[in-house]
Amino acid sequence: MAQNQKPAGKLISFEGSEGSGKTTQIARLAAHLQKTNREVVSTREPGGTEIGEQIRNIIVHNSRGDEMCAETELLLFTAARAQLVREVIAPALLRGAIVLSDRFLDSSTVYQGVGRNLAADPVAQINRFAVGTVMPDMTIVIDVPPEVSLARLKQRASDLPDRMERENIDFYKKVRDGYLVLAQGMPERFIVVDGTKSEDAIEKKIWAEVQTRLK
Amino acid sequence: MAQNQKPAGKLISFEGSEGSGKTTQIARLAAHLQKTNREVVSTREPGGTEIGEQIRNIIVHNSRGDEMCAETELLLFTAARAQLVREVIAPALLRGAIVLSDRFLDSSTVYQGVGRNLAADPVAQINRFAVGTVMPDMTIVIDVPPEVSLARLKQRASDLPDRMERENIDFYKKVRDGYLVLAQGMPERFIVVDGTKSEDAIEKKIWAEVQTRLK
Repeated sequence: MAQNQKPAGKLISFEGSEGSGKTTQIARLAAHLQKTNREVVSTREPGGTEIGEQIRNIIVHNSRGDEMCAETELLLFTAARAQLVREVIAPALLRGAIVLSDRFLDSSTVYQGVGRNLAADPVAQINRFAVGTVMPDMTIVIDVPPEVSLARLKQRASDLPDRMERENIDFYKKVRDGYLVLAQGMPERFIVVDGTKSEDAIEKKIWAEVQTRLK
Repeated sequence: MAQNQKPAGKLISFEGSEGSGKTTQIARLAAHLQKTNREVVSTREPGGTEIGEQIRNIIVHNSRGDEMCAETELLLFTAARAQLVREVIAPALLRGAIVLSDRFLDSSTVYQGVGRNLAADPVAQINRFAVGTVMPDMTIVIDVPPEVSLARLKQRASDLPDRMERENIDFYKKVRDGYLVLAQGMPERFIVVDGTKSEDAIEKKIWAEVQTRLK
Protein backbone atom coordinates (compact mmCIF):
# COMPACT_ATOMS: atom_id res chain seq x y z
CA MET A 1 0.00 0.00 0.00
CA ALA A 2 1.64 3.21 -1.15
CA GLN A 3 0.86 5.14 2.01
CA ASN A 4 4.14 7.02 1.97
CA GLN A 5 3.37 8.68 -1.33
CA LYS A 6 1.72 12.06 -0.82
CA PRO A 7 -1.78 11.44 -2.13
CA ALA A 8 -3.63 13.82 -4.39
CA GLY A 9 -6.96 13.43 -2.61
CA LYS A 10 -8.24 14.94 0.61
CA LEU A 11 -9.67 13.31 3.71
CA ILE A 12 -12.35 15.25 5.57
CA SER A 13 -13.57 13.69 8.80
CA PHE A 14 -16.77 14.63 10.60
CA GLU A 15 -16.87 14.43 14.37
CA GLY A 16 -19.34 15.21 17.12
CA SER A 17 -21.77 13.57 19.49
CA GLU A 18 -24.54 11.33 18.30
CA GLY A 19 -27.45 13.49 17.20
CA SER A 20 -25.18 16.30 16.08
CA GLY A 21 -26.31 15.99 12.45
CA LYS A 22 -23.15 14.57 10.88
CA THR A 23 -24.98 12.25 8.46
CA THR A 24 -27.12 15.05 7.04
CA GLN A 25 -24.18 17.39 6.62
CA ILE A 26 -21.96 14.75 5.01
CA ALA A 27 -24.65 14.14 2.37
CA ARG A 28 -24.99 17.86 1.72
CA LEU A 29 -21.25 18.44 1.47
CA ALA A 30 -20.95 15.44 -0.85
CA ALA A 31 -23.60 16.97 -3.13
CA HIS A 32 -21.67 20.26 -3.30
CA LEU A 33 -18.39 18.50 -4.02
CA GLN A 34 -19.87 16.26 -6.70
CA LYS A 35 -20.89 19.36 -8.65
CA THR A 36 -17.19 20.28 -8.87
CA ASN A 37 -16.55 17.03 -10.78
CA ARG A 38 -14.35 15.55 -8.08
CA GLU A 39 -14.73 11.94 -7.09
CA VAL A 40 -16.36 11.85 -3.64
CA VAL A 41 -16.20 8.79 -1.39
CA SER A 42 -18.39 8.76 1.72
CA THR A 43 -17.70 6.25 4.46
CA ARG A 44 -18.32 5.68 8.13
CA GLU A 45 -16.74 4.33 11.26
CA PRO A 46 -16.79 1.76 12.65
CA GLY A 47 -17.52 -0.03 9.39
CA GLY A 48 -17.09 1.02 5.80
CA THR A 49 -15.64 -2.36 4.80
CA GLU A 50 -17.02 -5.89 5.05
CA ILE A 51 -14.64 -6.70 7.92
CA GLY A 52 -15.33 -3.33 9.52
CA GLU A 53 -19.09 -3.89 9.45
CA GLN A 54 -18.57 -7.27 11.15
CA ILE A 55 -16.56 -5.47 13.83
CA ARG A 56 -19.32 -2.85 14.10
CA ASN A 57 -21.80 -5.66 14.78
CA ILE A 58 -19.74 -6.89 17.72
CA ILE A 59 -19.61 -3.40 19.18
CA VAL A 60 -23.34 -2.81 18.70
CA HIS A 61 -24.41 -6.27 19.88
CA ASN A 62 -22.43 -5.92 23.07
CA SER A 63 -23.97 -2.60 23.86
CA ARG A 64 -26.57 -3.87 26.32
CA GLY A 65 -24.28 -4.17 29.29
CA ASP A 66 -20.86 -3.31 30.57
CA GLU A 67 -19.26 -6.58 29.53
CA MET A 68 -16.93 -5.05 26.97
CA CYS A 69 -13.89 -3.46 28.61
CA ALA A 70 -12.68 -0.07 27.39
CA GLU A 71 -9.43 -1.57 26.07
CA THR A 72 -11.29 -4.05 23.86
CA GLU A 73 -13.59 -1.30 22.64
CA LEU A 74 -10.61 0.83 21.58
CA LEU A 75 -8.88 -2.09 19.87
CA LEU A 76 -12.06 -3.01 17.96
CA PHE A 77 -12.63 0.55 16.75
CA THR A 78 -9.02 0.83 15.64
CA ALA A 79 -9.13 -2.61 13.98
CA ALA A 80 -12.05 -1.44 11.84
CA ARG A 81 -10.20 1.83 11.15
CA ALA A 82 -6.99 0.08 10.06
CA GLN A 83 -8.99 -1.94 7.52
CA LEU A 84 -10.93 1.10 6.29
CA VAL A 85 -7.73 3.09 5.76
CA ARG A 86 -6.00 0.38 3.73
CA GLU A 87 -8.99 -0.95 1.80
CA VAL A 88 -10.94 2.26 1.08
CA ILE A 89 -9.41 5.57 2.15
CA ALA A 90 -5.77 5.26 1.04
CA PRO A 91 -6.66 3.94 -2.46
CA ALA A 92 -9.31 6.67 -2.86
CA LEU A 93 -6.84 9.40 -1.85
CA LEU A 94 -4.34 8.02 -4.37
CA ARG A 95 -7.01 8.33 -7.06
CA GLY A 96 -7.44 11.98 -6.07
CA ALA A 97 -10.84 11.54 -4.45
CA ILE A 98 -12.25 13.59 -1.62
CA VAL A 99 -13.11 11.18 1.18
CA LEU A 100 -15.76 12.14 3.72
CA SER A 101 -15.65 9.99 6.81
CA ASP A 102 -18.37 9.90 9.44
CA ARG A 103 -15.92 9.71 12.39
CA PHE A 104 -12.21 8.91 12.28
CA LEU A 105 -9.36 8.70 14.77
CA ASP A 106 -10.46 11.67 16.89
CA SER A 107 -13.50 9.62 17.92
CA SER A 108 -11.18 7.15 19.67
CA THR A 109 -9.22 9.96 21.32
CA VAL A 110 -12.41 11.46 22.65
CA TYR A 111 -14.76 8.50 23.29
CA GLN A 112 -12.34 5.84 24.51
CA GLY A 113 -9.60 8.17 25.75
CA VAL A 114 -11.41 11.07 27.41
CA GLY A 115 -14.81 9.39 27.77
CA ARG A 116 -13.65 6.04 29.14
CA ASN A 117 -10.53 7.31 30.91
CA LEU A 118 -7.95 5.35 28.92
CA ALA A 119 -4.48 6.91 29.15
CA ALA A 120 -3.79 9.35 26.31
CA ASP A 121 -0.41 7.95 25.22
CA PRO A 122 -1.44 4.38 24.34
CA VAL A 123 -4.62 5.67 22.67
CA ALA A 124 -2.49 7.97 20.49
CA GLN A 125 0.03 5.20 19.74
CA ILE A 126 -2.68 2.72 18.76
CA ASN A 127 -4.45 5.36 16.66
CA ARG A 128 -1.20 6.08 14.81
CA PHE A 129 -0.56 2.38 14.25
CA ALA A 130 -4.07 1.96 12.83
CA VAL A 131 -4.01 4.91 10.41
CA GLY A 132 -0.37 4.83 9.32
CA THR A 133 0.27 8.08 7.46
CA VAL A 134 -3.36 8.71 6.56
CA MET A 135 -4.46 11.74 8.60
CA PRO A 136 -7.47 13.97 8.00
CA ASP A 137 -6.72 17.11 6.03
CA MET A 138 -9.71 18.70 7.67
CA THR A 139 -11.92 17.72 10.60
CA ILE A 140 -15.35 19.23 11.03
CA VAL A 141 -16.75 19.09 14.56
CA ILE A 142 -20.47 19.70 14.75
CA ASP A 143 -20.80 21.02 18.25
CA VAL A 144 -24.02 20.58 20.21
CA PRO A 145 -24.64 20.79 23.95
CA PRO A 146 -25.21 17.36 25.54
CA GLU A 147 -28.84 18.17 26.30
CA VAL A 148 -29.58 18.93 22.64
CA SER A 149 -27.78 15.77 21.53
CA LEU A 150 -29.83 13.58 23.88
CA ALA A 151 -33.13 15.28 23.06
CA ARG A 152 -32.54 14.71 19.33
CA LEU A 153 -31.66 11.08 19.91
CA LYS A 154 -34.89 10.45 21.75
CA GLN A 155 -36.84 11.71 18.73
CA ARG A 156 -35.19 9.20 16.40
CA ALA A 157 -37.68 6.38 16.86
CA SER A 158 -36.06 4.17 14.22
CA ASP A 159 -32.61 4.34 15.79
CA LEU A 160 -31.68 1.44 17.98
CA PRO A 161 -29.92 2.85 20.98
CA ASP A 162 -26.35 1.58 20.94
CA ARG A 163 -23.68 1.51 23.59
CA MET A 164 -22.63 5.08 22.99
CA GLU A 165 -26.10 6.54 22.74
CA ARG A 166 -27.23 5.21 26.10
CA GLU A 167 -24.46 6.90 27.99
CA ASN A 168 -25.41 9.55 30.48
CA ILE A 169 -25.20 13.27 30.15
CA ASP A 170 -21.87 13.52 31.99
CA PHE A 171 -20.30 11.26 29.39
CA TYR A 172 -21.61 13.51 26.60
CA LYS A 173 -20.19 16.54 28.39
CA LYS A 174 -16.77 14.88 28.48
CA VAL A 175 -17.04 14.00 24.79
CA ARG A 176 -18.02 17.53 23.82
CA ASP A 177 -15.23 19.07 25.89
CA GLY A 178 -12.78 16.54 24.45
CA TYR A 179 -13.56 17.63 20.90
CA LEU A 180 -13.26 21.30 21.80
CA VAL A 181 -9.86 20.76 23.45
CA LEU A 182 -8.60 18.90 20.36
CA ALA A 183 -9.92 21.64 18.07
CA GLN A 184 -8.24 24.38 20.12
CA GLY A 185 -4.94 22.50 19.96
CA MET A 186 -5.05 21.94 16.19
CA PRO A 187 -6.87 24.93 14.62
CA GLU A 188 -5.16 24.27 11.26
CA ARG A 189 -7.02 20.95 10.99
CA PHE A 190 -10.24 21.51 12.94
CA ILE A 191 -13.33 23.50 12.10
CA VAL A 192 -15.97 23.74 14.83
CA VAL A 193 -19.47 24.56 13.65
CA ASP A 194 -22.43 25.39 15.87
CA GLY A 195 -24.75 22.41 15.59
CA THR A 196 -27.71 24.24 17.14
CA LYS A 197 -28.10 26.38 14.00
CA SER A 198 -30.43 25.34 11.16
CA GLU A 199 -29.31 22.55 8.82
CA ASP A 200 -29.13 25.06 5.97
CA ALA A 201 -26.97 27.46 7.95
CA ILE A 202 -24.60 24.67 8.98
CA GLU A 203 -24.40 23.43 5.39
CA LYS A 204 -23.50 26.92 4.17
CA LYS A 205 -20.85 27.40 6.84
CA ILE A 206 -19.23 24.00 6.12
CA TRP A 207 -19.24 24.50 2.37
CA ALA A 208 -17.65 27.95 2.73
CA GLU A 209 -14.91 26.57 5.00
CA VAL A 210 -14.25 23.59 2.74
CA GLN A 211 -14.01 25.80 -0.38
CA THR A 212 -11.52 28.07 1.36
CA ARG A 213 -9.38 25.26 2.71
CA LEU A 214 -9.41 23.05 -0.40
CA LYS A 215 -8.03 25.87 -2.55
CA MET B 1 -10.14 -4.48 38.09
CA ALA B 2 -7.41 -4.97 40.70
CA GLN B 3 -4.66 -5.71 38.21
CA ASN B 4 -2.01 -3.90 40.23
CA GLN B 5 -2.37 -6.25 43.16
CA LYS B 6 0.14 -9.12 42.92
CA PRO B 7 -2.13 -12.07 42.31
CA ALA B 8 -1.78 -15.38 44.08
CA GLY B 9 -2.41 -17.50 40.98
CA LYS B 10 -0.14 -18.39 38.09
CA LEU B 11 -0.58 -17.93 34.36
CA ILE B 12 0.97 -20.57 32.12
CA SER B 13 0.73 -19.92 28.40
CA PHE B 14 1.25 -22.53 25.69
CA GLU B 15 2.76 -21.46 22.39
CA GLY B 16 3.84 -23.12 19.18
CA SER B 17 2.73 -23.67 15.61
CA GLU B 18 -0.58 -25.23 14.74
CA GLY B 19 -0.27 -29.00 14.97
CA SER B 20 2.33 -28.77 17.74
CA GLY B 21 0.07 -30.59 20.21
CA LYS B 22 -0.79 -27.71 22.55
CA THR B 23 -4.39 -28.77 23.14
CA THR B 24 -3.43 -32.32 24.18
CA GLN B 25 -0.70 -31.11 26.52
CA ILE B 26 -2.88 -28.45 28.13
CA ALA B 27 -5.47 -31.13 28.98
CA ARG B 28 -2.78 -33.39 30.43
CA LEU B 29 -1.18 -30.64 32.49
CA ALA B 30 -4.62 -29.58 33.75
CA ALA B 31 -5.25 -33.16 34.92
CA HIS B 32 -1.96 -33.19 36.86
CA LEU B 33 -2.66 -29.82 38.44
CA GLN B 34 -6.21 -30.71 39.43
CA LYS B 35 -4.85 -33.61 41.50
CA THR B 36 -2.95 -31.05 43.60
CA ASN B 37 -6.29 -29.49 44.59
CA ARG B 38 -5.58 -26.20 42.88
CA GLU B 39 -8.26 -24.48 40.84
CA VAL B 40 -7.32 -24.82 37.17
CA VAL B 41 -8.79 -22.58 34.48
CA SER B 42 -8.14 -23.52 30.85
CA THR B 43 -8.75 -20.96 28.14
CA ARG B 44 -7.78 -20.18 24.57
CA GLU B 45 -6.97 -17.33 22.25
CA PRO B 46 -8.48 -15.78 20.32
CA GLY B 47 -11.67 -16.40 22.25
CA GLY B 48 -12.27 -17.55 25.81
CA THR B 49 -15.06 -15.00 26.35
CA GLU B 50 -18.33 -14.36 24.53
CA ILE B 51 -16.92 -11.21 22.94
CA GLY B 52 -13.63 -12.95 22.20
CA GLU B 53 -15.37 -15.81 20.42
CA GLN B 54 -17.23 -13.28 18.27
CA ILE B 55 -13.87 -11.74 17.40
CA ARG B 56 -12.48 -15.21 16.67
CA ASN B 57 -15.34 -15.72 14.19
CA ILE B 58 -14.36 -12.58 12.28
CA ILE B 59 -10.76 -13.76 12.08
CA VAL B 60 -11.73 -17.27 10.96
CA HIS B 61 -14.44 -16.14 8.51
CA ASN B 62 -12.05 -13.79 6.79
CA SER B 63 -9.45 -16.47 6.33
CA ARG B 64 -10.30 -17.28 2.72
CA GLY B 65 -8.42 -14.44 1.16
CA ASP B 66 -5.99 -11.65 1.87
CA GLU B 67 -8.63 -9.02 2.56
CA MET B 68 -7.72 -8.56 6.21
CA CYS B 69 -4.67 -6.35 6.65
CA ALA B 70 -2.02 -7.32 9.19
CA GLU B 71 -2.76 -4.27 11.35
CA THR B 72 -6.43 -5.25 11.68
CA GLU B 73 -5.46 -8.83 12.45
CA LEU B 74 -3.18 -7.67 15.29
CA LEU B 75 -5.81 -5.31 16.70
CA LEU B 76 -8.48 -8.03 16.63
CA PHE B 77 -6.26 -10.57 18.40
CA THR B 78 -5.34 -8.02 21.05
CA ALA B 79 -8.98 -6.91 21.43
CA ALA B 80 -9.94 -10.50 22.26
CA ARG B 81 -6.92 -10.75 24.60
CA ALA B 82 -7.80 -7.55 26.48
CA GLN B 83 -11.28 -8.92 27.16
CA LEU B 84 -9.96 -12.35 28.18
CA VAL B 85 -7.49 -10.80 30.63
CA ARG B 86 -10.07 -8.63 32.38
CA GLU B 87 -13.03 -11.01 32.28
CA VAL B 88 -11.34 -14.36 32.92
CA ILE B 89 -7.61 -14.41 33.63
CA ALA B 90 -7.17 -11.55 36.12
CA PRO B 91 -10.13 -12.62 38.32
CA ALA B 92 -8.92 -16.26 38.24
CA LEU B 93 -5.39 -15.23 39.26
CA LEU B 94 -6.83 -13.20 42.13
CA ARG B 95 -8.68 -16.31 43.32
CA GLY B 96 -5.34 -18.14 43.29
CA ALA B 97 -6.10 -20.32 40.26
CA ILE B 98 -3.60 -21.70 37.80
CA VAL B 99 -4.63 -20.46 34.37
CA LEU B 100 -3.57 -22.40 31.29
CA SER B 101 -3.93 -20.42 28.09
CA ASP B 102 -3.70 -21.90 24.61
CA ARG B 103 -1.74 -18.95 23.17
CA PHE B 104 -1.23 -15.51 24.73
CA LEU B 105 0.66 -12.35 23.84
CA ASP B 106 3.73 -14.11 22.38
CA SER B 107 1.49 -15.35 19.55
CA SER B 108 1.01 -11.75 18.42
CA THR B 109 4.73 -11.01 18.69
CA VAL B 110 5.50 -14.02 16.55
CA TYR B 111 2.57 -14.34 14.11
CA GLN B 112 1.71 -10.71 13.42
CA GLY B 113 5.11 -9.24 14.25
CA VAL B 114 7.66 -11.67 12.85
CA GLY B 115 5.30 -13.58 10.53
CA ARG B 116 3.53 -10.60 8.96
CA ASN B 117 6.40 -8.13 9.23
CA LEU B 118 4.76 -5.61 11.53
CA ALA B 119 7.30 -3.42 13.35
CA ALA B 120 8.26 -4.84 16.74
CA ASP B 121 7.72 -1.65 18.78
CA PRO B 122 4.04 -1.02 18.08
CA VAL B 123 3.30 -4.74 18.42
CA ALA B 124 4.94 -4.71 21.87
CA GLN B 125 3.14 -1.49 22.87
CA ILE B 126 -0.25 -2.81 21.79
CA ASN B 127 0.40 -6.14 23.51
CA ARG B 128 1.25 -4.29 26.74
CA PHE B 129 -1.87 -2.15 26.46
CA ALA B 130 -4.03 -5.25 25.98
CA VAL B 131 -2.66 -7.31 28.88
CA GLY B 132 -1.99 -4.54 31.41
CA THR B 133 0.06 -6.11 34.20
CA VAL B 134 -1.01 -9.68 33.49
CA MET B 135 2.05 -11.47 32.12
CA PRO B 136 2.62 -15.23 31.90
CA ASP B 137 4.59 -16.68 34.80
CA MET B 138 5.66 -19.48 32.50
CA THR B 139 5.43 -20.01 28.75
CA ILE B 140 5.74 -23.46 27.26
CA VAL B 141 6.75 -23.56 23.60
CA ILE B 142 6.10 -26.90 21.94
CA ASP B 143 8.67 -26.81 19.19
CA VAL B 144 8.11 -28.73 15.96
CA PRO B 145 9.76 -28.29 12.56
CA PRO B 146 7.44 -26.66 9.99
CA GLU B 147 7.27 -29.86 7.94
CA VAL B 148 5.98 -31.85 10.93
CA SER B 149 3.47 -29.16 11.78
CA LEU B 150 2.04 -29.10 8.26
CA ALA B 151 1.97 -32.89 7.95
CA ARG B 152 0.01 -33.17 11.20
CA LEU B 153 -2.43 -30.51 10.10
CA LYS B 154 -3.20 -32.35 6.90
CA GLN B 155 -4.19 -35.42 8.92
CA ARG B 156 -6.76 -33.49 10.95
CA ALA B 157 -9.74 -34.04 8.69
CA SER B 158 -12.19 -32.33 11.03
CA ASP B 159 -10.18 -29.12 11.27
CA LEU B 160 -11.34 -26.30 9.08
CA PRO B 161 -8.26 -24.72 7.60
CA ASP B 162 -8.06 -21.17 8.90
CA ARG B 163 -6.02 -18.21 7.81
CA MET B 164 -3.01 -19.27 9.83
CA GLU B 165 -3.07 -22.91 8.89
CA ARG B 166 -3.03 -22.27 5.16
CA GLU B 167 0.17 -20.28 5.29
CA ASN B 168 3.14 -21.66 3.51
CA ILE B 169 6.16 -23.38 4.94
CA ASP B 170 8.30 -20.23 4.95
CA PHE B 171 5.78 -18.58 7.23
CA TYR B 172 5.93 -21.54 9.63
CA LYS B 173 9.72 -21.33 9.63
CA LYS B 174 9.54 -17.66 10.61
CA VAL B 175 7.05 -18.49 13.36
CA ARG B 176 9.22 -21.28 14.73
CA ASP B 177 12.35 -19.13 14.67
CA GLY B 178 10.42 -16.28 16.27
CA TYR B 179 9.47 -18.45 19.25
CA LEU B 180 13.01 -19.73 19.65
CA VAL B 181 14.43 -16.19 19.63
CA LEU B 182 11.90 -15.10 22.29
CA ALA B 183 12.72 -18.16 24.41
CA GLN B 184 16.47 -17.51 24.20
CA GLY B 185 15.94 -13.93 25.28
CA MET B 186 13.75 -14.79 28.27
CA PRO B 187 14.89 -18.16 29.64
CA GLU B 188 13.40 -17.38 33.06
CA ARG B 189 9.91 -17.38 31.53
CA PHE B 190 10.19 -19.78 28.59
CA ILE B 191 10.42 -23.56 28.46
CA VAL B 192 10.99 -25.09 25.04
CA VAL B 193 9.97 -28.72 24.68
CA ASP B 194 10.68 -30.95 21.71
CA GLY B 195 7.31 -31.53 20.05
CA THR B 196 8.53 -34.42 17.93
CA LYS B 197 8.78 -36.66 21.01
CA SER B 198 5.87 -38.88 22.07
CA GLU B 199 2.87 -37.26 23.77
CA ASP B 200 3.72 -39.11 26.99
CA ALA B 201 7.33 -37.94 26.94
CA ILE B 202 6.25 -34.33 26.35
CA GLU B 203 3.67 -34.57 29.13
CA LYS B 204 6.31 -35.85 31.56
CA LYS B 205 8.79 -33.14 30.63
CA ILE B 206 6.20 -30.36 31.00
CA TRP B 207 4.91 -31.66 34.33
CA ALA B 208 8.45 -31.90 35.69
CA GLU B 209 9.24 -28.33 34.62
CA VAL B 210 5.97 -26.96 36.01
CA GLN B 211 6.48 -28.71 39.36
CA THR B 212 9.98 -27.25 39.65
CA ARG B 213 8.96 -23.75 38.68
CA LEU B 214 5.72 -23.58 40.68
CA LYS B 215 7.54 -24.40 43.92
